[in-house]
Amino acid sequence: MILVNGQPTGIVDAGDRGLAYGDGVFRTLRTRAGQPLWWRDHYRKLAADCAALGLACPDEARLHAEVCGAAVAGEGVVRITVTRGAGTRGYAVPPGLVTTRIVSPAPLPAYAEDTAPDDVTVRWCTLRLARQPRLAGIKHLNRLENVLARAEWDDPAIFEGLLCDDGGAVIGGVMSNLLVARGGDLYTPDLSQCGVAGVARARLLRAAARLGIRTHIDRLPPAAILAADEVMICNSVIGVRRVARLDTKAWPPAGWTDTLKTALDEDAD
Amino acid sequence: MILVNGQPTGIVDAGDRGLAYGDGVFRTLRTRAGQPLWWRDHYRKLAADCAALGLACPDEARLHAEVCGAAVAGEGVVRITVTRGAGTRGYAVPPGLVTTRIVSPAPLPAYAEDTAPDDVTVRWCTLRLARQPRLAGIKHLNRLENVLARAEWDDPAIFEGLLCDDGGAVIGGVMSNLLVARGGDLYTPDLSQCGVAGVARARLLRAAARLGIRTHIDRLPPAAILAADEVMICNSVIGVRRVARLDTKAWPPAGWTDTLKTALDEDAD
Repeated sequence: MILVNGQPTGIVDAGDRGLAYGDGVFRTLRTRAGQPLWWRDHYRKLAADCAALGLACPDEARLHAEVCGAAVAGEGVVRITVTRGAGTRGYAVPPGLVTTRIVSPAPLPAYAEDTAPDDVTVRWCTLRLARQPRLAGIKHLNRLENVLARAEWDDPAIFEGLLCDDGGAVIGGVMSNLLVARGGDLYTPDLSQCGVAGVARARLLRAAARLGIRTHIDRLPPAAILAADEVMICNSVIGVRRVARLDTKAWPPAGWTDTLKTALDEDAD
Repeated sequence: MILVNGQPTGIVDAGDRGLAYGDGVFRTLRTRAGQPLWWRDHYRKLAADCAALGLACPDEARLHAEVCGAAVAGEGVVRITVTRGAGTRGYAVPPGLVTTRIVSPAPLPAYAEDTAPDDVTVRWCTLRLARQPRLAGIKHLNRLENVLARAEWDDPAIFEGLLCDDGGAVIGGVMSNLLVARGGDLYTPDLSQCGVAGVARARLLRAAARLGIRTHIDRLPPAAILAADEVMICNSVIGVRRVARLDTKAWPPAGWTDTLKTALDEDAD
């Protein structure tokens, strides 16, 4: 049952600007027994992304109730989409538009189940992300780069593809953020030019701070990934996973993923 | 009456990938007395853009019939949108998706009527277009840059905003392509890195060739615009318009716009 503005219609106006221009933002979060996980972080990020595009963010209590009402039984995911609404033709935003909110539940994908392997194999994508600081970090609806990058492989043994920007810096995975451990410190790519600054990444950075681990948000060349003690990917659906193989490079476990996995679920702040 | 897959429903599945990711392409064309103008060029461009994203392009005869059936009486516009269709969650394209086609008519906007002034005032936008060669030239649904750029002004005396890429080259207008005349030759920005290669631009380049005018597709810095004999913007709705003012710079007519306006409507090839 997909809720559109609270109604279980599953349909949107064909003139919605989310469809016309990708003029909106979204979140994908896990649900368990009808409750969203990491709700406070997700709502905060949704509000920040809405603000970045000048969208009115839906009321928190109402949205929370809709997520709970729509969620599947047991373990699941919910996608929340907020668009600028249905409007007239043209890029200019007409006054008085009302945002569209879509709450779309789905069962937990098999790759995200607790029984799925913690270790994953990843590859490099050839697509290079364009750098647009005005949109960087935001989980907006303009995701053709992700679609094109994900189309670069169909081998089910490959869990994720890693992307560089057009300046050669590693940004993250197609659907995940990247963290690397080296020499006792934790590094994650700077996302001020492109990429999505996800909630799992933010939680891992906070968890690392609680654990007394020094963190660095930095420009990381591919060589920095290959030289890492441990490489991890994360998002709100899969949590954190250890990268065991990247093309011909393989890593034995160094203990980081297990440590961070436990800390990721602690809502200490 | 908005046709969605030929039906006058005006609604799309909330799970459509056009909405989820901007995974699709579009066209906006003029109609007159229920017939699309420049149809052959528009269909060819639609097919090329679909091919660039790996989308099945709708059948030409069926789409033409839908455009004719949806068009308003008299002068109007029709937007054609083709998306990858409604699918499951995630960036990977599942097999067997059926594209969604949307044919959306509207009255001709006042600024495009024959009685609208041929001369326009434009401004520079501060947003810089990101360079993504994999998407450059395509009229895809990822148009947040255009939305943000158009939001930079609300003075109705400003007809259009001009955009540079992040390397400083002028790319075009928010909703139009750019042509400049200098020393008898015609120049238009290279769109291999970003921007939309519109049908009006293509027609003007062909018209110029018929008229024996040398054309150049090139990297144009802002100084090349300011040094031009005549500056023009074009798209399929407005045709070609003369830029009379760009911030503090003003140009008297040099005759180019009138010449090209006539040639633009000739379907000589």
